[in-house]
Amino acid sequence: MPIYDRHSMGHLPSAHASKDTIATFLASAHAVDVATWIEQLPVAERSQQLLDVDPGRRANVFGKMSLAAQTDLAGTVAAADLARIVTRMDADDRADLFNHLAPDDQKALMAELDEADRADIRRLSVHGDRSVGALMTSDYAVLAEDMTAKDALAALGRQAPDTETIYRSYVLDESRHLMGSIRLHELVLADDMTPVAALMEADPISASSDASREDVAHLIARYDLLALPVVDADGILLGIVTHDDAADAMQAEMTEDFQKISTVLPFSQNMRQASIRLLYSKRIVWLALLVFGNLFSGAGIAYFEETILAYVSLVFFLPLLIDSSGNAGAQSATLMVRALATGDVVLKDWRDLIGRELFIAAALGATMALVVFPLGIWRGGSDVALVVGMTMFLVVIIGSLVGMSLPFLLSRLKLDPATASGPLVTTISDALGVLIYFSIATTMLSL
Amino acid sequence: MPIYDRHSMGHLPSAHASKDTIATFLASAHAVDVATWIEQLPVAERSQQLLDVDPGRRANVFGKMSLAAQTDLAGTVAAADLARIVTRMDADDRADLFNHLAPDDQKALMAELDEADRADIRRLSVHGDRSVGALMTSDYAVLAEDMTAKDALAALGRQAPDTETIYRSYVLDESRHLMGSIRLHELVLADDMTPVAALMEADPISASSDASREDVAHLIARYDLLALPVVDADGILLGIVTHDDAADAMQAEMTEDFQKISTVLPFSQNMRQASIRLLYSKRIVWLALLVFGNLFSGAGIAYFEETILAYVSLVFFLPLLIDSSGNAGAQSATLMVRALATGDVVLKDWRDLIGRELFIAAALGATMALVVFPLGIWRGGSDVALVVGMTMFLVVIIGSLVGMSLPFLLSRLKLDPATASGPLVTTISDALGVLIYFSIATTMLSL
Repeated sequence: MPIYDRHSMGHLPSAHASKDTIATFLASAHAVDVATWIEQLPVAERSQQLLDVDPGRRANVFGKMSLAAQTDLAGTVAAADLARIVTRMDADDRADLFNHLAPDDQKALMAELDEADRADIRRLSVHGDRSVGALMTSDYAVLAEDMTAKDALAALGRQAPDTETIYRSYVLDESRHLMGSIRLHELVLADDMTPVAALMEADPISASSDASREDVAHLIARYDLLALPVVDADGILLGIVTHDDAADAMQAEMTEDFQKISTVLPFSQNMRQASIRLLYSKRIVWLALLVFGNLFSGAGIAYFEETILAYVSLVFFLPLLIDSSGNAGAQSATLMVRALATGDVVLKDWRDLIGRELFIAAALGATMALVVFPLGIWRGGSDVALVVGMTMFLVVIIGSLVGMSLPFLLSRLKLDPATASGPLVTTISDALGVLIYFSIATTMLSL
Repeated sequence: MPIYDRHSMGHLPSAHASKDTIATFLASAHAVDVATWIEQLPVAERSQQLLDVDPGRRANVFGKMSLAAQTDLAGTVAAADLARIVTRMDADDRADLFNHLAPDDQKALMAELDEADRADIRRLSVHGDRSVGALMTSDYAVLAEDMTAKDALAALGRQAPDTETIYRSYVLDESRHLMGSIRLHELVLADDMTPVAALMEADPISASSDASREDVAHLIARYDLLALPVVDADGILLGIVTHDDAADAMQAEMTEDFQKISTVLPFSQNMRQASIRLLYSKRIVWLALLVFGNLFSGAGIAYFEETILAYVSLVFFLPLLIDSSGNAGAQSATLMVRALATGDVVLKDWRDLIGRELFIAAALGATMALVVFPLGIWRGGSDVALVVGMTMFLVVIIGSLVGMSLPFLLSRLKLDPATASGPLVTTISDALGVLIYFSIATTMLSL
């Protein structure tokens, strides 16, 4: 019995595997594993291996590949072969693929499809990458209110092979208004003649078509849904989003948050496959921009050059003070970014939270001042120790407050709170830290 | 029709709502929303409102509350009332609650439960918080291989009210070995007399009981599963993990990664509810520890005091250089932490990635050197510009390499790669940066 873990996951055949081993693998392994294996092959060999997969599961394997691999393959496979695959793909996956094809490839593909598939692709592919439309599928089962449980099960039997989820069906009136939803086991357990209207859950939870993919993922997680129906302003069912696609979208959002928080511009490619050029371009922008932010710290230092010349031991503590302020700020910023992303905290909580943050930051600052005070005595005597301790107390507080406020401010400005908040906080608190440090030094050391 | 979005989510009654409004809300709102509303009330009022909920849905509402709120409530509700709720809760949720109760409350609760519930709680509650055991539920439907489809549906009809998921049932032999799994719609669509053995998927994907909750969440996401069976070393079914619990576990892991990456020790409380004391204790540890890391930078500065006194304009560039190095390092570290967490990258990829990182870092360093060179000319002339440019080139490369390697190293040492990687990278690259900067300066400015 195959007990899976993350490391043995896949049990993929090696590059030197025999033809028989590969044939067995293509025929019997999970579609996800076959897709992973084909993606690892050199580009030139991929289309042959895909065409070696049984036509019945080829679309399924293809649909499990990354969008980048799908697009590459679409360029090397004959349009007729591609069309045969696309016809059998999940509606949402093929609309995504279509959106990523070059215009010529789109045209070639459409010419090979029948009218129903063309219309479905056109309808689903008009949505932007980030909208709920891009997650939505049209493969759902539909019932009418006046069907009996027995009729409904028969109807599901006819629709089943084409639907992505059969566990929940949607009840529509003649104009396709969403009237209710019903779970398969309620139909199975019900008396044959009970009407669907009596069994269905009326007014099910639904999302509007202008919701973001993040909103939809949150709704599905909050209410533990298998699928969420999406309706237009008139309540007409446009499609459904399934839990697995929502979970993937949530993961993608999270990866973006990690990237943004560390000043990497968002990208969706797998780290192992991303090109050097791509990674360079995603990383250089903020790195270079932050240089200009740092000029403020430099200007502060230039202004206090005489203080530095008189007490050069002050420079000893400079990295320590600005890093501590930056670390405290990064802590607050990250906690806030995450709390805003999970919905634990909303914009209006800012006022309550800033008060509490002040207490926490004061406690942190006082502790840090106590830690650094003996170091000050050791390096520069009690005067320097006092300057360093006071500075530490203040910069930890200021770093924390800046760190907590910046995500709210970005959010207020309709920007993603994760955007560069870590390094922006560091840069701002650095500049303030330099000013505070040398101002206190100049005053207290009577320079 | 209620179209939900994140902001209108819940439609919770206000504090001044009439009794009728609240009664309607308790009776008809989604259990998740009722739970959220009760949690927002002052602690003293919560148990009364919970007991106002219809007994039929009380356990469901209670199960949707946070573990902290459940534990608080368990202390204020009579043991007999609590037992009535616990009897109807999902098996995994109540085992979790049990683990969080004070020993006396555990004893009082157990005394009120019947033997089957006691045994179930004992069995599920032996698992640690992080193990798959803590996610596992015993509420699944069981079939035998020699049942017909008709028998199986009848058996499901009997088991249904007690199972968390009915969409997939598990086929066991007499010793409870997991033989296969079967989807409800396959039974519904099959001929009445077809045996279960012919319909089931043999050897379904399963996890071992020593898998981590992260592993299980990854398996469920990778294979788009509704539920994952967990077996012991002999292949005996211990329980199942459902997709919604796995998604919650994944979210919790992600929040932890965000905390760790910003040097906050992990905690699971909601940011708005976490106490000042808790937040202080989670944040101070790494802040204070990193002070000692920063002493290395300080020592470097002390060693080069004469260089600084001779060219005090060098201090102008110090924050800029160490921040740039730290930012580049944080970028690499975050990308790696995330790629290791999603499984995009595994330990053995280190060798390939370090080579590529060297190229990217060199390109980033060269660009940054070009950006900073004119600033060097402006502040200190061409000599200083050359020193600053060369230093920038080197520190960006070193920061990136340290940033990329540290998560691998932590992972190698069986530590979580997210642990403090951001600030640790900053601290290490700061110290190296100071050394490089002033060494180059001392050599090139012939001091």
